[in-house]
Amino acid sequence: MRFIIQRDRLVQSVQDVMKAVTSRTTIPILTGIKIVATTDGVTLTGSDSDISIESFIPKEDAGDEIAEIKQPGAIVLQAKFFSEIVKKLPTDTVEIHVENQLQTVIRSGKSEFKLNGLDADEYPHLPQIKEENIFKIPTDLLKAMIRQTVFSVSTSETRPILTGVNWKVGNGELTCVATDSHRLALRKARIETEADESYNVVIPGKSLGELSKILDDNNDLIDIVITENQVLFKAKNLLFFSRLLEGNYPDTSKLIPNESKTNIVVNTKDFLHAIDRASLLAREGRNNVVKFTTIQDGIIEISSNTPEIGNVVEELQSQSIEGEELKISFSAKFMMDALKTLEGSEITISFTGAMRPFVIRPINDDSILQLILPVRTY
Amino acid sequence: MRFIIQRDRLVQSVQDVMKAVTSRTTIPILTGIKIVATTDGVTLTGSDSDISIESFIPKEDAGDEIAEIKQPGAIVLQAKFFSEIVKKLPTDTVEIHVENQLQTVIRSGKSEFKLNGLDADEYPHLPQIKEENIFKIPTDLLKAMIRQTVFSVSTSETRPILTGVNWKVGNGELTCVATDSHRLALRKARIETEADESYNVVIPGKSLGELSKILDDNNDLIDIVITENQVLFKAKNLLFFSRLLEGNYPDTSKLIPNESKTNIVVNTKDFLHAIDRASLLAREGRNNVVKFTTIQDGIIEISSNTPEIGNVVEELQSQSIEGEELKISFSAKFMMDALKTLEGSEITISFTGAMRPFVIRPINDDSILQLILPVRTY
Repeated sequence: MRFIIQRDRLVQSVQDVMKAVTSRTTIPILTGIKIVATTDGVTLTGSDSDISIESFIPKEDAGDEIAEIKQPGAIVLQAKFFSEIVKKLPTDTVEIHVENQLQTVIRSGKSEFKLNGLDADEYPHLPQIKEENIFKIPTDLLKAMIRQTVFSVSTSETRPILTGVNWKVGNGELTCVATDSHRLALRKARIETEADESYNVVIPGKSLGELSKILDDNNDLIDIVITENQVLFKAKNLLFFSRLLEGNYPDTSKLIPNESKTNIVVNTKDFLHAIDRASLLAREGRNNVVKFTTIQDGIIEISSNTPEIGNVVEELQSQSIEGEELKISFSAKFMMDALKTLEGSEITISFTGAMRPFVIRPINDDSILQLILPVRTY
Repeated sequence: MRFIIQRDRLVQSVQDVMKAVTSRTTIPILTGIKIVATTDGVTLTGSDSDISIESFIPKEDAGDEIAEIKQPGAIVLQAKFFSEIVKKLPTDTVEIHVENQLQTVIRSGKSEFKLNGLDADEYPHLPQIKEENIFKIPTDLLKAMIRQTVFSVSTSETRPILTGVNWKVGNGELTCVATDSHRLALRKARIETEADESYNVVIPGKSLGELSKILDDNNDLIDIVITENQVLFKAKNLLFFSRLLEGNYPDTSKLIPNESKTNIVVNTKDFLHAIDRASLLAREGRNNVVKFTTIQDGIIEISSNTPEIGNVVEELQSQSIEGEELKISFSAKFMMDALKTLEGSEITISFTGAMRPFVIRPINDDSILQLILPVRTY
C-alpha cells in the first residue's frame, strides 16, 4: 500500500473514526484504525464492536486531487499514535507507505515516522446491511431530535433497555422517546420514505451522542437503514453503524397524561434562569429539589432551602395561569435539562396535581414534549 | 451592613479573591469571603492562610457610582455559594443587607437569597506590612517573568525550597530563578526603586501562578513590598499577599556553564514542532527522551524510538552549527516547556558535551536563560 494524501482531509477522517475507537477493548486490533487504499480513494474504519465508523476519502473531490494512490493495499495502525502523528505533521501532504511486512512509513517534509502495523485481514468485518428500506431525514433535524431526547436516557444498567432511545417509524413519521423512569422526552418528525415500513427499535444513547458529534450542521439528507440488530446512518463519505439494544421498550404512551388541572404559560429563558438560581441552594439537599407555587395575579414562586446555608425565593410573572392553584416540587436539574431542549420563547406547563407527572411543551408546537415526575415533599 | 452595588464589579472582585479560597482548609471561616462596607466602598477578602487577596470596590470610579453604602459593616459569607449566586443574579445591581444577627439578604430583581453569614470579627487579620521599601515593575513584565520561570519549580515536597521561585533584588535589578534540579529557568529585568535595598527570598510557585491569573495584561506599575516572611503585590484596588518559603535557596550561579563546545542557532518554532513530533513516540519510554544529533551541512537529526510501536526521525536545518559534533539525549517535555517561554524567532543552544547541562537563549537577549540537564543514553 502506498499513497499520498492531503493532510487536512486525513486528519478530519481520522478524527471521525476515532469516535468509535476505545482503548478499553478486549479485542486488541480494535485499538487500531484500518486504512484501505483502492483505486477510488482511501477508507478509514474505527470500531468498538458496538459502534463502527467508516470514513471515505475520495481520490478526487470537485476536481481537486485529494489522494494519489500509488499502490492499493490495507493496514491497521495504532489509533492513539496515528491520530496524534497526522495532526502534527509539518507539511500539507502526507505519504503513507507499507514497506516490508507490516512496517508503515508516514512521511511529511523532513519528518519520517515508522509504525508497526497490524494485518488488515484480521480486522473484524463490518455488518453487511441490505439497503432495502431506507428513510431519509435532514442532518440538522436528526441532530436536533437526538439532542432533544438523548439526555433523558437512563445511565443505570439496572434496566439496560432504558439506556437507549426508542425509535418508532410508521405512517411517514419518526418518533423518538427516551426515559429514565423519572422523566421522559419525546420528539417526532415527518420523514422521507418510499416503502411504508414500520419499525420499533432501541438505539444506544451513547451511539446517538457520538453520531451527533460527527455530523456537520447542514440540511443534507441522511439515509437511515434499520435491520433486526443494526442501524446504519449514511452521510456523504461516512457510514455510521450501531448495534441495537435487545428487549422490549416499555409502552410509554400511557405515561403521558391527556388531561390537566393547571396550565401555565411562561417565558422559557426567564423560567430557566429562575430555576437555575433556585437550584444553587437546593444542591446540598436531596436530589436538587425546588418548590414551585402559584400565587395570585399570575405570579409563580420558586424556592429552595438548605437549612445550614440559607434559602432562596424567586418570583416569576407568568403569561397566564389557568385552573387549580398548585404547590409542587421537582428536580431543578431535570427541569433545566428539559427547558434547554425547547426552542421558542414561550412554553406551556400542564400539571395534573402535585403527585402526577407534568408536561412541558413549546406553545403551538406538538412535535416535542418533555415530561417530569414531581418529588413528593408536600 | 447594607449596600447596593453594580453586579459586574462585584462578580469580578469575587472571582479575584476566590483564587485564594480553598475548601480544603482546616480553618472553617477561611471557606468564606469577608465583605467589609465602609463609607469609601466595599472590600472583599479571601485567604487560604498562604495566599491572601484583598479586592477593593470604590463607591465611585471615574464619576460613575459603583456602590451606594447605606450602612457600613462587615460579614463573612460562604465563598462557594456567594460566588455562584452573584454570577447568576438577574439584574445589574445587587443589594446586600445583613438583617438580624448574621443572616444576610442578597436581593436582585425578584430574586431574594438569604445566607447564614459568619462573624467578620473572627476572620483572621491580614499581615501588617510596613511599606518602606517598595520597588515597582510593569504588570505585563511581571507576568512574563512569572511565566518564564514558574514552570521550572519542583512539584515534589522532598526539597520544599525548590517548590518556590528565588527572587533576588540588587543593583536595581530583579532576578528570578526556578529549578527542580533537572532544569533551571532564569529571568532578570531592571526595576524601579528608590532605596537601594537588596533581597534574596523564595516565593511559592503556586502563589506566583495565582497572582499571574488575577493581573490584567497592561503596563501599569505594580508595587512590590518584601518583608522577612511575606511579599505583598499592590495593583490598583488589589492587594495580593503571599508567605515566603523558609530556608536557603541553593546557589544556582555555579550550575550555569560559562563556556561551551557546540553552539547551534535554530528557528524556535521549527525546533519546537520537531521536538513535539519526536516526543509522540518517546512518550512510552523512560521520561519522554529524544535524541539530538548534529550531522553534516548544519542539519540536526531529532529521533526517538519505542520498540513495540515504532520510531521517528526528524531532520532540521539549523542556521549554524559551530564547534564539536554532538550526540545528546534530553527530555522532550523539558525542551518544549523551555522553548515556549522564549520570545523571538531564533535561539542559541550552547552545549558543553553530552553529559553537561546545556543552555538555551534567544539570540541577542541575555535577560532570559533556560538550562536543561541531559539524559545519559549514549
